[in-house]
Amino acid sequence: MAVHFPPLPDLPPVAGFQMATTACGIKKNGATDLLLVAMAPPCAVAGLFTRNQVVAAPVTLCRERLTQGTAHALIVNAGNANVANGPQGMAHALTLTREVAHLLNVLEETVFAASTGVIGEPLPVEKPLAALPKLHDRLTADGWEAAARAIMTTDTQPKATSRQILLGGKTVTLIGIAKGAGMIHPNMATMLAFLFTDAALSSPLLQTLLTQAVETSFNSISVDGDTSTNDTLMAFASGQAGHPPLEQLTDQEQSLFAEALTSLCQTLAQWLIRDGEGASKFVTITVQGARTDADAKQVAMTIAKSPLVKTALAGSDPNWGRILCAIGYAGIPLSVEKLDLFLGEVQIVRGGVRDPDYTEAQGQTVMQEAEITLRIDLKSGSASRTVWTSDLTHDYVAINADYRS
Amino acid sequence: MAVHFPPLPDLPPVAGFQMATTACGIKKNGATDLLLVAMAPPCAVAGLFTRNQVVAAPVTLCRERLTQGTAHALIVNAGNANVANGPQGMAHALTLTREVAHLLNVLEETVFAASTGVIGEPLPVEKPLAALPKLHDRLTADGWEAAARAIMTTDTQPKATSRQILLGGKTVTLIGIAKGAGMIHPNMATMLAFLFTDAALSSPLLQTLLTQAVETSFNSISVDGDTSTNDTLMAFASGQAGHPPLEQLTDQEQSLFAEALTSLCQTLAQWLIRDGEGASKFVTITVQGARTDADAKQVAMTIAKSPLVKTALAGSDPNWGRILCAIGYAGIPLSVEKLDLFLGEVQIVRGGVRDPDYTEAQGQTVMQEAEITLRIDLKSGSASRTVWTSDLTHDYVAINADYRS
Repeated sequence: MAVHFPPLPDLPPVAGFQMATTACGIKKNGATDLLLVAMAPPCAVAGLFTRNQVVAAPVTLCRERLTQGTAHALIVNAGNANVANGPQGMAHALTLTREVAHLLNVLEETVFAASTGVIGEPLPVEKPLAALPKLHDRLTADGWEAAARAIMTTDTQPKATSRQILLGGKTVTLIGIAKGAGMIHPNMATMLAFLFTDAALSSPLLQTLLTQAVETSFNSISVDGDTSTNDTLMAFASGQAGHPPLEQLTDQEQSLFAEALTSLCQTLAQWLIRDGEGASKFVTITVQGARTDADAKQVAMTIAKSPLVKTALAGSDPNWGRILCAIGYAGIPLSVEKLDLFLGEVQIVRGGVRDPDYTEAQGQTVMQEAEITLRIDLKSGSASRTVWTSDLTHDYVAINADYRS
Repeated sequence: MAVHFPPLPDLPPVAGFQMATTACGIKKNGATDLLLVAMAPPCAVAGLFTRNQVVAAPVTLCRERLTQGTAHALIVNAGNANVANGPQGMAHALTLTREVAHLLNVLEETVFAASTGVIGEPLPVEKPLAALPKLHDRLTADGWEAAARAIMTTDTQPKATSRQILLGGKTVTLIGIAKGAGMIHPNMATMLAFLFTDAALSSPLLQTLLTQAVETSFNSISVDGDTSTNDTLMAFASGQAGHPPLEQLTDQEQSLFAEALTSLCQTLAQWLIRDGEGASKFVTITVQGARTDADAKQVAMTIAKSPLVKTALAGSDPNWGRILCAIGYAGIPLSVEKLDLFLGEVQIVRGGVRDPDYTEAQGQTVMQEAEITLRIDLKSGSASRTVWTSDLTHDYVAINADYRS
């Protein structure tokens, strides 16, 4: 059984962005592994990065460059994470972005970079460096799917989606591309995700909206509880849609953009889970009736991370005792005797004990599905949160035990 | 490959304790599943229990009864956890301990109980109840191995060990029995562990020493990061060895007893890991050079829990980048550029980057072993801690996906 992965939607060009990809030779299998996105005019830019203290050189570089608030280009390689390479790692990141700046004739500080792949191997910088002139020659406005493919590592599917909204009478497009697929856990997933829009707004507002969007999307998923060294989410806004700056639009229009951004992030985040390493189930966990949002999320993420819940899901076993157990060690104040638990539409636990009407056969039927919803009502308040996770399968072990072999 | 499991050591009788086991029919495979330990005279007693908020009825019962400070008996069933059964669960626990008290002619409040097995199924209390008279008739001083077998669930090996020391010129014996083997994570492991000694000491002192012992033993192991609903560690001291109370002995003798208790707990805790579900490797993780003990333990346990580290171990892949990554998200202040990492005797990371002399072949050789030691030097202080874990294998998934099938 495999989780359904939807076909890629329509991915229109976004005014202000051109891109190109190539196989420069970092990936040993000859797949594309280098992406250049060029931006003209200079874009507003925002970013969020891993909270891991061991970080890739490009993460450090991007954090520093974000402070000046404009972007002209993004260079991404897959196949090598450029982590734990010491001063040489940073030198390689600088070399690459300097060459991009030279080719595009822009300031070096406006070029951003990201890497993903194996940790601790030196980046063979001569390979992407040699490929840059060719990439520059091939820049085109119509290459989102190829862009999504070039940043993949253990992903089996490219991930890209779009939204269109009307702002100030103008059509505004948002495109997002992302890659997983292991070390998927906030903060953030092992993921790279890049959002591109022709909306007009300042970098500080873009940063604020991106930070809001991430809480209920990329920070509400877990594959394996590992927070990577390279997690990067960046948003670029070219302002070419022709509407007045978002700051001058109505609250309603500002909300419209914020919702589109959040929705874009949620779709990408859910796709990371659908394509999570070894995933055979896509699991939605909603915790309601919590005292606070933080409590609701804490309980939901504790269930989402539990290896025993995740192996039960893999085995299609309605082992609700493990779910109850995970709720119990989530570390929030709990009135166990009030608690209700639903698997799909089937109520299993009522008031902290097994519902007298529940039969194992009912639970078994729901567990056979590839898409499963767990709902917990804590009956202690009115806050609720939803998170997404996958199951823990033989394939997860196989993929991660043999990744480098 | 399997982890080496040592043969059971000599398990001498302990003055003041008698025991009996039987297969009362809770386990469907007909294995022994009921243990009665009778204590005469009344014993000093101490206990530590799961911090999960969803707890088994016997855990609640034991917590209450500990306050009166003496024990006359312990009744343990395996095969059913007696969790999430509401008021009926507690009624069943009370019925069992009342019948034990009646048979032994002791106060009901001095009878302790524990359960382990599937969560959420009603305990078929009539089965152990019917078996109690037979158990009572069969009480013997020489049945530690049988006792260890009767409390097993997914364990493949019974776990029991002993220590003998001299206190006040008298030989003092300590016996410990324990069971795992999943949901193994502090606080505490999914474990039941019971310690029996003929040493003479008060319940408050026993509680203090037990609490100290657990920190570097049962609370320093992880199989899967799940904290169970039933975790129970209890210690019983009959005072029959004939030495003056421990409180009146020298500091040196008190330390001797404390060390024996800790050592007993460490051996049992390590055996839980050696017999961890699906374990093919026994992994010792030492973090040194930390600012504080808490920092050292936090880093060690973060590595011990990481699914990506544990799958790499299963695959015998010296994927040190994942170890570095886990250190980075442990959440303690870190000077990455100082960090050293050793796999066995092989130095892989020196000053935060790959040691120039390290070769993959060296790491590969160490990773082939069934017993692996990881050592991290944070170079930030003088505190150190050691924890133990197992790898995450196909068998772990198979055991937990199919546990109830």
